[in-house]
Amino acid sequence: MKAVVVPAANARWEVKEVPTPEPGPNQVLIRIRASGLCYTDVHITRGAIPTQFPRTLGHEPVGEIAALGPGVTARRVGDRVGVPWVQSSCGRCEWCLRGQKTFCRESVGTGVQTQGSHAEYMLAQADATVLLPEALSYEQAAPIFCAGYTVYSGFRLAEPRPTDRVAVVGLGGLGHLALQYAKATGHHTTAVTHSKDKEKQLRELGADAVVPDGATLQRAGGADVILATSNSFDAVTDSIQALRPDGRLVLMGVDAKPLAVPTSIMWVRGRIIGSSQNDPAHLYEALQLVASGKVKVVTETYRLDEIGRAYDRVAEGKVRYRAVVVP
Amino acid sequence: MKAVVVPAANARWEVKEVPTPEPGPNQVLIRIRASGLCYTDVHITRGAIPTQFPRTLGHEPVGEIAALGPGVTARRVGDRVGVPWVQSSCGRCEWCLRGQKTFCRESVGTGVQTQGSHAEYMLAQADATVLLPEALSYEQAAPIFCAGYTVYSGFRLAEPRPTDRVAVVGLGGLGHLALQYAKATGHHTTAVTHSKDKEKQLRELGADAVVPDGATLQRAGGADVILATSNSFDAVTDSIQALRPDGRLVLMGVDAKPLAVPTSIMWVRGRIIGSSQNDPAHLYEALQLVASGKVKVVTETYRLDEIGRAYDRVAEGKVRYRAVVVP
Amino acid sequence: MKAVVVPAANARWEVKEVPTPEPGPNQVLIRIRASGLCYTDVHITRGAIPTQFPRTLGHEPVGEIAALGPGVTARRVGDRVGVPWVQSSCGRCEWCLRGQKTFCRESVGTGVQTQGSHAEYMLAQADATVLLPEALSYEQAAPIFCAGYTVYSGFRLAEPRPTDRVAVVGLGGLGHLALQYAKATGHHTTAVTHSKDKEKQLRELGADAVVPDGATLQRAGGADVILATSNSFDAVTDSIQALRPDGRLVLMGVDAKPLAVPTSIMWVRGRIIGSSQNDPAHLYEALQLVASGKVKVVTETYRLDEIGRAYDRVAEGKVRYRAVVVP
Amino acid sequence: MKAVVVPAANARWEVKEVPTPEPGPNQVLIRIRASGLCYTDVHITRGAIPTQFPRTLGHEPVGEIAALGPGVTARRVGDRVGVPWVQSSCGRCEWCLRGQKTFCRESVGTGVQTQGSHAEYMLAQADATVLLPEALSYEQAAPIFCAGYTVYSGFRLAEPRPTDRVAVVGLGGLGHLALQYAKATGHHTTAVTHSKDKEKQLRELGADAVVPDGATLQRAGGADVILATSNSFDAVTDSIQALRPDGRLVLMGVDAKPLAVPTSIMWVRGRIIGSSQNDPAHLYEALQLVASGKVKVVTETYRLDEIGRAYDRVAEGKVRYRAVVVP
Repeated sequence: MKAVVVPAANARWEVKEVPTPEPGPNQVLIRIRASGLCYTDVHITRGAIPTQFPRTLGHEPVGEIAALGPGVTARRVGDRVGVPWVQSSCGRCEWCLRGQKTFCRESVGTGVQTQGSHAEYMLAQADATVLLPEALSYEQAAPIFCAGYTVYSGFRLAEPRPTDRVAVVGLGGLGHLALQYAKATGHHTTAVTHSKDKEKQLRELGADAVVPDGATLQRAGGADVILATSNSFDAVTDSIQALRPDGRLVLMGVDAKPLAVPTSIMWVRGRIIGSSQNDPAHLYEALQLVASGKVKVVTETYRLDEIGRAYDRVAEGKVRYRAVVVP
Repeated sequence: MKAVVVPAANARWEVKEVPTPEPGPNQVLIRIRASGLCYTDVHITRGAIPTQFPRTLGHEPVGEIAALGPGVTARRVGDRVGVPWVQSSCGRCEWCLRGQKTFCRESVGTGVQTQGSHAEYMLAQADATVLLPEALSYEQAAPIFCAGYTVYSGFRLAEPRPTDRVAVVGLGGLGHLALQYAKATGHHTTAVTHSKDKEKQLRELGADAVVPDGATLQRAGGADVILATSNSFDAVTDSIQALRPDGRLVLMGVDAKPLAVPTSIMWVRGRIIGSSQNDPAHLYEALQLVASGKVKVVTETYRLDEIGRAYDRVAEGKVRYRAVVVP
Repeated sequence: MKAVVVPAANARWEVKEVPTPEPGPNQVLIRIRASGLCYTDVHITRGAIPTQFPRTLGHEPVGEIAALGPGVTARRVGDRVGVPWVQSSCGRCEWCLRGQKTFCRESVGTGVQTQGSHAEYMLAQADATVLLPEALSYEQAAPIFCAGYTVYSGFRLAEPRPTDRVAVVGLGGLGHLALQYAKATGHHTTAVTHSKDKEKQLRELGADAVVPDGATLQRAGGADVILATSNSFDAVTDSIQALRPDGRLVLMGVDAKPLAVPTSIMWVRGRIIGSSQNDPAHLYEALQLVASGKVKVVTETYRLDEIGRAYDRVAEGKVRYRAVVVP
Repeated sequence: MKAVVVPAANARWEVKEVPTPEPGPNQVLIRIRASGLCYTDVHITRGAIPTQFPRTLGHEPVGEIAALGPGVTARRVGDRVGVPWVQSSCGRCEWCLRGQKTFCRESVGTGVQTQGSHAEYMLAQADATVLLPEALSYEQAAPIFCAGYTVYSGFRLAEPRPTDRVAVVGLGGLGHLALQYAKATGHHTTAVTHSKDKEKQLRELGADAVVPDGATLQRAGGADVILATSNSFDAVTDSIQALRPDGRLVLMGVDAKPLAVPTSIMWVRGRIIGSSQNDPAHLYEALQLVASGKVKVVTETYRLDEIGRAYDRVAEGKVRYRAVVVP
């Protein structure tokens, strides 16, 4: 099969012919139909997130099951499935026993501790696979397995009241989904972005307002829920001033420097919440809302042999929303 | 191995020599160290809950793993484990995808759709087994896998506030645990029972008050949370009058006739909640609280060849709290 | 001023000239601009809910403040306000201290323990008045103070997940609002009604489906949340079969006979919740959603001197949704 | 009457004879029986929290009602009451309408915007007064109205599970109450303090463990809930490393510099929660738990004419737990 291989840290991605793997016990072989690209792939390539090279990346895999390993009973050849980040865990620690596998210290991440989905085929633990709703296309489904799961889960953890005003900071792959999830559930939504040229499209995606920064958001009435998808904690800190009393800020990005939280924010304005992909019900619902047509992923689609270009665009921040590879 | 076999509906239980089973893929063989008896075993024997005979009952199994089937990676020979009611499910329906297996229509119940734990050995799906806390004895652990899980889960679903007064209706195997869980978390507790002779022991177990009925409970100030473990819905209805405003009644028993809920109760007094063994975190915590010594199961212990007598005592309602078979 | 007076139980309503009252300490005089009629007015007239006659009924009052009594500081003449059912309470019991005045045994109900709003003017405790959103008309606002508050509060207590399917049983004054609140927050909605002729309008109000009974609802996939506004508990019991696993039934009607709840429902299907008008935040949000235009009250409007006819139509069940008197 | 007057910022407190005030409309005159001293009094004296001088400070007042102003109906002369920080609010903004007065921008703080409780008498809005449980002494009650309310509310907002391990950072007036509230509700508790000499007393108050810092706490297993009462955010940041997965850090102190929150904490370890005195039910419960004897305030008691010495000890950090003035 063809697979995209990263030979070493900071090396260029290569499309290579490699042996198609065979599913071991409790594994399935997935014929990949779409594989989302994530900026995390860039982090891994650059060595910022440790892995073992050579490595095939890709942790937003969807496709159809092509073969079953021994012991698999709940999946069938032909099943349309996707796989989230956490593919397996130790099964023995408190968090595994509690049913919160993402907290397990030995959890195995798709495309980091396993070969990922930028390939024609991928192995996965059968019980980590999630059946796709019938109405959902592969291309729409793939980005939900990391980007969509993260933002929808964060949105749910914020426990939004029906009249809560929701602001989204960082309007890329995660943010444009966060905006739509909030809109689909009846909320007033504000996109906080300096990219003036995104305004028209953001409004089409459901933004009731588009503002450049936290100060403007605050003058416009602020937000009860801020979904911060930006990887710049400076941008997040800038938005905090617009948090309304009893507000909730959900952190979904990653920054090397810590978030600075002033006393004043916490005493009156509530909660800061870290998002985790830790509840399969959230992934289930996130997929349903896309299947229903209420949320649409805006994608750039690439063939597997175009992945070098796709990677460059992701790395350079040129992909506006989400890039998907279709082998 | 020796196993207790129920040859047919309404037939007498027999201790028989049967072949020790061998674990199939993803199964483990458990050497049973303790097996709780539950009134549900009587229901099944009498045909009130359908199963296929001959059948070895028993759905509160604990023991040590004696052998691993193919594909098992997260369990080891020698592991001390228990198994809850739901052992497996379809893996494909909404509820399985959401992570709420108890709601799956095809969920497989230990000791009903499988051979149960009233035996020297039992097979179980490896990923349904739960590791026991080190400090917990087998005899104390067994009844937590059904009785304890049910009441602790119901208690948690009631979302008790620290100052809530908790009443327990029905003071048998489930009720005496419900009482202790409420006490261990700092609540004022009332046992509602007609059995005057239980009073001394119930006070030792943590009852701050013992009253005969709902009217007396109401005069004594009522309860914010009523944990109704009784299988008589008449007794439960009697207690409802004592529910305080904003109160929560948790139903954990089973009755052929419906519960009669007056309008007045619902408008002011809140919620009626059905308990389910549906959150592994609840089972984890229920085990921890017994391991810590804060909750103690009061058991009658029988050898496997005494199980006929144990069954009779359960069927006749003579077992005050919980009977456990130790093979 | 003109006021509608019910001279005695079962007597006919009369429009009479009575002295305009003067506000005492901490009271305001409200010039009534709209006053909702509720079937509860019929119950009171018939003596089913005790009051002291002669009595002016009406507990959905909105209008503008015409005069302030001594000690009033937070209201001004001209303020647009409404008044909910609970107007004052003892201020000394646990529930008053907790901030849950509806649970106070001495709570004073507008139009039952006080003279109500079917009149040109009404007195109210100043701190019980709620300021109306600017964009909200009096006619739209009035029915929210009882009907809207009840159903929105019940909806919120059901803690709906974004993908929950919501069914409404009983499609009158309360039900048509329940339906719209569920729709405005992004839910799939089903109206359960035998009134075939309501279907077109219910769809216009936001019903995604209209079904005649619980069995049909169940076949169509059931509901996660059932908002039961019907005063027939037979209709409610009929709907219970359609409750999905983890479902929530919210009781908002009143029936002389108790609700029959089968064991099977509770073990798998969750919670029965009584609605109360007990959280001012719910009333605040319920008003906002009407002010935003997402929810529209369907009203029949009557002049004060037409109230006899309005009453007859309410009593005979001919008012499809909500009758409002505009003095 | 005698009152403690702060003539100007940074001036020394003076005990002076001043006119006893008379209650205006909706006010009560409270004969002060105990008045807690809080480090906030020092902040105000130093000008760090703005007020208008001359000012009588004191915002933990308890006593008996000596006189009623016009319009007061729910209080009687002789009532034993206390008054929390927020004494009144605008009554017109969103937060007042929602019932969350602490968020009102015009909320009036006891002893800052009003004359406070370091005096023989104090005026208060009648509806801001809270009746004391009978069994509760004035001296025990006073510190609950600010210190106790803050920590108990924070504890409740953390939504502790019964098996959660609770750590308290900062073991002074707030911290020693936080520790006891956690212990009274059945939790394993750890005190995090560098004050080696406090260990014995902290264990007597209910600490299961006493550790010097976050690193030691982490090695000892960490905490699910950290109640951070320290005004040093450095100490708080030090403790964050010990937060377990799904953990909650409640911020109850105030620091001029912001709290630094690393990405890693938020992705796995959950929530940072700001405490507010915003739910009267929390104050009600906090008082009940002290009245029940489960929580005991450790106080130093001073006569009114000793307040200069009391102030010095508070300002110098020499008061170990809580100072109370008894006029």
